[in-house]
Formats: sequence, C-alpha cells, structure tokens
Amino acid sequence: MKETATTSSPVVERIQQDLNSLATYRDDSRPGWTREVFSESYHASREWTKRLMREAGLDVFQDDAGNLVGRMQGRDPNAAPIITGSHTDTVDGGGRFDGIVGVLGAVEAVRNIRESGLRLHRDLIVVDFLGEESNEFGLSCLGSRALAGELTPGDMNRVGTRGNTLGQAYEHFGLEPSAALGKPWIRGTKPHAYIELHVEQGNALEQAGLGVGIVSAISGIDRLLARFVGKQDHAGTRAMAERHDAMVAAASAVLALRAEGCGAPTHGVATTTSVTNQSHSPNVVPGLVELRGEVRSTDRQWLSGTRKRLAEQIGNAAKELGVEADLSWTTDNEIVEASRGVQDIAAAVVDAMGIPWMAVPSGATHDAVHMARLAPMGMIFVPSKDGKSHCPEEWTDPAAIGLGVEVLTRTLRQLDVTATFN
Amino acid sequence: MKETATTSSPVVERIQQDLNSLATYRDDSRPGWTREVFSESYHASREWTKRLMREAGLDVFQDDAGNLVGRMQGRDPNAAPIITGSHTDTVDGGGRFDGIVGVLGAVEAVRNIRESGLRLHRDLIVVDFLGEESNEFGLSCLGSRALAGELTPGDMNRVGTRGNTLGQAYEHFGLEPSAALGKPWIRGTKPHAYIELHVEQGNALEQAGLGVGIVSAISGIDRLLARFVGKQDHAGTRAMAERHDAMVAAASAVLALRAEGCGAPTHGVATTTSVTNQSHSPNVVPGLVELRGEVRSTDRQWLSGTRKRLAEQIGNAAKELGVEADLSWTTDNEIVEASRGVQDIAAAVVDAMGIPWMAVPSGATHDAVHMARLAPMGMIFVPSKDGKSHCPEEWTDPAAIGLGVEVLTRTLRQLDVTATFN
Repeated sequence: MKETATTSSPVVERIQQDLNSLATYRDDSRPGWTREVFSESYHASREWTKRLMREAGLDVFQDDAGNLVGRMQGRDPNAAPIITGSHTDTVDGGGRFDGIVGVLGAVEAVRNIRESGLRLHRDLIVVDFLGEESNEFGLSCLGSRALAGELTPGDMNRVGTRGNTLGQAYEHFGLEPSAALGKPWIRGTKPHAYIELHVEQGNALEQAGLGVGIVSAISGIDRLLARFVGKQDHAGTRAMAERHDAMVAAASAVLALRAEGCGAPTHGVATTTSVTNQSHSPNVVPGLVELRGEVRSTDRQWLSGTRKRLAEQIGNAAKELGVEADLSWTTDNEIVEASRGVQDIAAAVVDAMGIPWMAVPSGATHDAVHMARLAPMGMIFVPSKDGKSHCPEEWTDPAAIGLGVEVLTRTLRQLDVTATFN
Repeated sequence: MKETATTSSPVVERIQQDLNSLATYRDDSRPGWTREVFSESYHASREWTKRLMREAGLDVFQDDAGNLVGRMQGRDPNAAPIITGSHTDTVDGGGRFDGIVGVLGAVEAVRNIRESGLRLHRDLIVVDFLGEESNEFGLSCLGSRALAGELTPGDMNRVGTRGNTLGQAYEHFGLEPSAALGKPWIRGTKPHAYIELHVEQGNALEQAGLGVGIVSAISGIDRLLARFVGKQDHAGTRAMAERHDAMVAAASAVLALRAEGCGAPTHGVATTTSVTNQSHSPNVVPGLVELRGEVRSTDRQWLSGTRKRLAEQIGNAAKELGVEADLSWTTDNEIVEASRGVQDIAAAVVDAMGIPWMAVPSGATHDAVHMARLAPMGMIFVPSKDGKSHCPEEWTDPAAIGLGVEVLTRTLRQLDVTATFN
C-alpha cells in the first residue's frame, strides 16, 4: 500500500495500518495476496485478527463453525444483538480489501464507539466468518452458512481437488465437523439486524463519482450446464453440410448468453465461464462439448425470462446444426433483497452526513446472503478502483474506507436505538 | 465382419478372410480395432503381414525405416519399379479398413497377377508403411516420410505423451533411429509410379452411387492457433459493456471458421477442433482463451483467401470486444496434386471395365503425399459407408473392395507397359 490516502485522519491511519498488518499474512508461493481458507497463512492471520479484536475491547471466541466472534456487551442483556462483519480469507491471487474491509472496519467501528464514551443499548457482535470465498470444495460462505443452519452433513462429504473431504479440512483446522452444523451460539438468538461493510467489486460507484452505496439486493445466480451432442467426424473428409458440429452449437450459445446479458436491465449479466470439448485431436469435428455459464440479476422476472429465452435460442441454433442440446440450470443463490428498514436507516445516516450516495445491487454474493435468513440485512459499499476484484490490483482508497467505517459506525448506533423496522 | 458381401468371388472371399485375420490383432483394452504404431498388437500383426506377403510370392524384408517391403521381380532389372501399398496401423478406437485395404489389396493384386501367369516388365514393390496415423509424438506417415527423406533428426527428439522420444520408440521397436533417416533402400531409385488403394473416408462416392474414385489431389492443411487476450473479471460485478471477454471473441471465431467452410468450393472445410480457457473458475469472465482449428482444401487460392478473410473477420470481431487476437498459422501439408498421367491411366482402365467413376479430392492425408516426392503418384478410392472413418463403424463392403483391387491390378499392369506419362 504505497499509495497515500487523500484525506488523512487517525481513523484512516489506523485502518491503513491494520490493512497492512493483515496483508503480511499471505502465501508467498502464490500471486497476489493469497490467504485461502484452511491454509497456514489463514490460520496464522486469525491469531492476529483475534488479538486485534481483543485489543479493541471485544470478548472474543472462535465458535464451533470456525467463525471468530467478538462481543461488545450492551446495557440491556435482553435486547436483540446487532451483528456486523465479513471475512478475511481471499481467493487464490486475490487482493487486500474484499471481505477484509468489513472485518477491520467493524473493529474500527467498535473502537470509535468505545472512544466516544458511548455504551450501546444492545450487544454488538463482530464476526470474521470462516471461508467466504468459494474453495476447492466448491462451497462458499462456510461460516455464515453454518450460522444460518444451511451447512449440511452432505456438504462435509464434498471431496476437494486434493482428494480430502470438507469435513477432514475442518478437522485439520481444529474443528469438529458435526458441531459446525448446529447453528452454533446463534441458536435461539433473533438478532436485531445484520449489516456488512464491503468493497463494491464493481464500478458503479466510481463511475457515478460517489463514495457510498447502499445495497438494495444481492443478485441471484443461475448456473447453466449445457451439453451439446453432435457427431464426431474426420475434420478433413466430412463435408460442411453433413456435420453435426457440437463446437459450433456451443459457440452460438456463447453469443446467445452474451446477447442476453447485453440486453439485460442495468444489473443483469450473463457469462460463459468455460467451454470444453471431449476430443483434443487436431483433426476431429467436435462431437461432444460442454458449456458452463451463469446469469445473475436482482430482477427475478428477468432471470426467469432469460432462462426461457436462452433455452429456446440455444436449442434452436443447435437443432439447425443437427446437434442435441441438453440444458440444465441450478440456482446457486436466490435473489436476496436487503431489508427496507436497514436501507432506510443507513440512508438517513448518510443524508445526515451530507454525503451523496446511491442504491446499488450487488453482483457478487456475500455472507449477508445467509445472514439475511437470521435478521434484517443491509450492506454498505465503498468504491473499488476500476471495479477490479479477486486480483492483486484490487484497490479501495483508505480515505474511502474511512468514510465507509464512519457510515457503518453511525448506522450501528442508529440501529441500536431503533426499536422496530421492516 | 458379419455382413455378407453382395457379390461373392474367390478374390472377395480371400480379401474378406485377410481383413478378418488382420483384425484379430488389436488392443483388447481399447475400443474398436485399435492397433497403434509401436504397440504390441501392431508388432505382432506385422509378423502376420510379412507371412502373408511371403505366401503371395514376394521377397520380403523390413527396411531401416520400419517399412515392410515385398518385391515381385520383373523381367527387366533396369526398369524403374512400380510401388503400391499403404499402412496397417490404426488410430485409437479406429476401424478395419483405413490403410489396411491398400496393403491387403496390393497383396491380392500380386496374387492375381501371378495367378494370371503374367510376368511384369518392372519390379512391383508392395509397402506396408510404418505408422501412417498421427501418433503420440504428433507425427504421421513415419515410414513414407522416411523414404522421401523428410524424417529429420529433430523429429527423433520429439517427446511423446509418455515422456519418451520418438527415437526411443524406434529403438524399442528394434529400429536404429539414425538408419531410418537416410531414405533406406529407395536411395538412388527413381520409381516409375506410386499408386495407393484406399477407402474414401468421406461420402462423395456413396452419395454419387459410384464404386470407384480417382483422386485428383490431396488437400493441403493449414492449422490455426488463435490466442484471445481479454481481461479476467468477476462475472457477477463487471458490467457487460465493460467486459473484454476472450470467450465471446473465440466464439465469434468458431462461427467465422464455420461460415468460411460453408462458403468454400466443393472440397473446402474449416473446423474448430478445440477451445480452451485458462481459468475454470465458475465466476470469472474468461481473460485468456485459445482456439485451435484447421482449414483444408485442394484449392490453393481458396486456402490462402480463407486465411486472409479469417484473419480480418476474427480480428475485427475481437477488436469490437476489446480483446486482442493473435493468430498463427502453420501449414501441416501442402496441397499435393495426383500425377495427371497416373490419373489418366487409371481412368482408362476403369472406363475399359465399363464402370462409372468420378474424380475426387482427398480430404485426409496419406502416405501418397510423401511418395509423391519420389514418383508420379495416384490413388484409387473405394466408398466408405456413411463416410465414417477413424471409428469402429468404419465400413466398406468387401465386394466394393474387390472392385477396387481389380482396378488396382489392371492399373498396375497398365503402368507396367506405359513407358512415359506426365
């Protein structure tokens, strides 16, 4: 972090220092700031995070699901607690901000509240969720999923790329797999609200020249697996008119996905993430090709319309080529709307600060998706430079983070004193 | 070969028997009739082939390049010899006819000539060329390449998929790699003609309802490697309009290749044989995608025009997507024209038999490509059922093979007495 903050303040300096310290925990053998869940660098970093939380005055423990939980006790032991947090793991070759800003920002919010001499009415709980990023077991949001009761015994049997199961990875990390499944510590608690500070990972805020976004909804993700079955033929001898070329059918599907995404309302996207053909022979007309893709939106109607249109377009194009197209869709995430009440409170806070803001959908998924099962959920976004994320170049200006922490702090205080909201 | 020949004769029965016997030499652990070069089943089969050639009255030896060479001595030791033959190796999961028909057919032609009491003026040399099919070292036509002096010391250093070199494979097969490089036995010989009987592997003859094709030319093959460099991005957060999606650029290229092939003169084809993307993450906009393809034709002008048009179309489509396209072409085979004189002699023979025929280009490559360096070259095609080849379903009716052998026999006799041709 050689760049200098445009605005310097004690808060910004503290955050910058914490970001720098946490960034030292990384896998040197990998590009960027790699700190994957269950890795040694992750394990080591969490001792540091635990210490940071303790120094901020939180009562800290690691729960049975592997989440680091820090509690600042409120005045009323019977009041529903407020939860805030995010994650400190990264993707392979990732950056220093995704998730991290929400954990360090929450700790800074606690310091700020404490330093202001205020004692909250409710317990404030800061969580560093276990492994939010999708991992070698193909499962994201391990810690928040567990709290929401959405982690299953079947998940523990998922086999990773190195041949071990997720359950074995838990054990190796010092966790008892079965204990992680029972909604640890939160069981019976009905939290007052969940709010998460995060970098946008897109560039809507930057393009609008705004420092704060209030998340309206988190995109639903529908994943497509399309299997094209044509006929494998000799590429030198089979006439064009008599081919059943699975690769051409797949290419048409790639363009259909692209066209759907481009025709989507503001926040719909459609992506082909991979195309693989069975034969790698240099002289064979591809007979079997698989395409993987996804569509995302916060607009339920568009998502289902897109699935229908794509099925028709891809099917028709394949038919014309004499290729069978078998499409199967799985919903990875349902669309999750942010709580209207939490959005309103955050908006009122930002308005009172005299800061312009905008409502933004989240294209990426977050721990907030799962926490929304337990409590009214809200998210505050700060801008990502060039919208880059999951790469070493991921960047958010420390001053912008400072502003986000200020909004988080004030929103937490406001949530504390608001008895009911929708 | 449970199917019965439509026309039965001693010749057809002998060929059917030989085809059945050779088909018993196969790798049981692989699908179809697998007998790959250097394999145990190939090694064993060649003892059988050698015996078959001896029983037909040929003087047989294995040359330094691993070719089985059988000579029927002519009356004039100073006359330039005629060469005929093909190969007995198959691709993985291949069939019982590709190549094989040309070797067994040549042996049958020898038997027919001998049985007719005729003694040829010239030596007739039957060759079972070593490994014609592309192998794990990525090199086809090993034996004919060697005879043409086109096998290089560099080729012997090619590393196969199992980590050994081509030279080591030669040694393991009992051959001295350096000895294979010096145009063994053919050095100094200027053959009178080379003629090869082969299954069409396409379906032009079948569609025309014809039993015989005389090859006009063997397609040139230009291979394309296109590298698309865009920007890897988060598939959930990067807006469609701001993407540099390498997969979409590759898909456009697949369709451009298809369109070029469909717009080609009768025997031009264009195929994308593989598309691979670097990242297999389910939530990443592909940033780097490689496409492999090929164009084939016997029309030199179309081939070079196609390369130019594809470069322009693929480049423009990529540019519009903000993706860099880097295209590199390699010529795998130049177009090889069959000798006008050999074509004319074969045509006169077929006309004299009262059989309708057509001139056909060959989309597949053959040992004849390399033998054309040494002698006027011709090929006779017999129909392939449904145009299928390089698969277990490859099929040519024994009676159709019998007719091809008859044409080959008569053409050999005619070549023998024709002093000069172009």
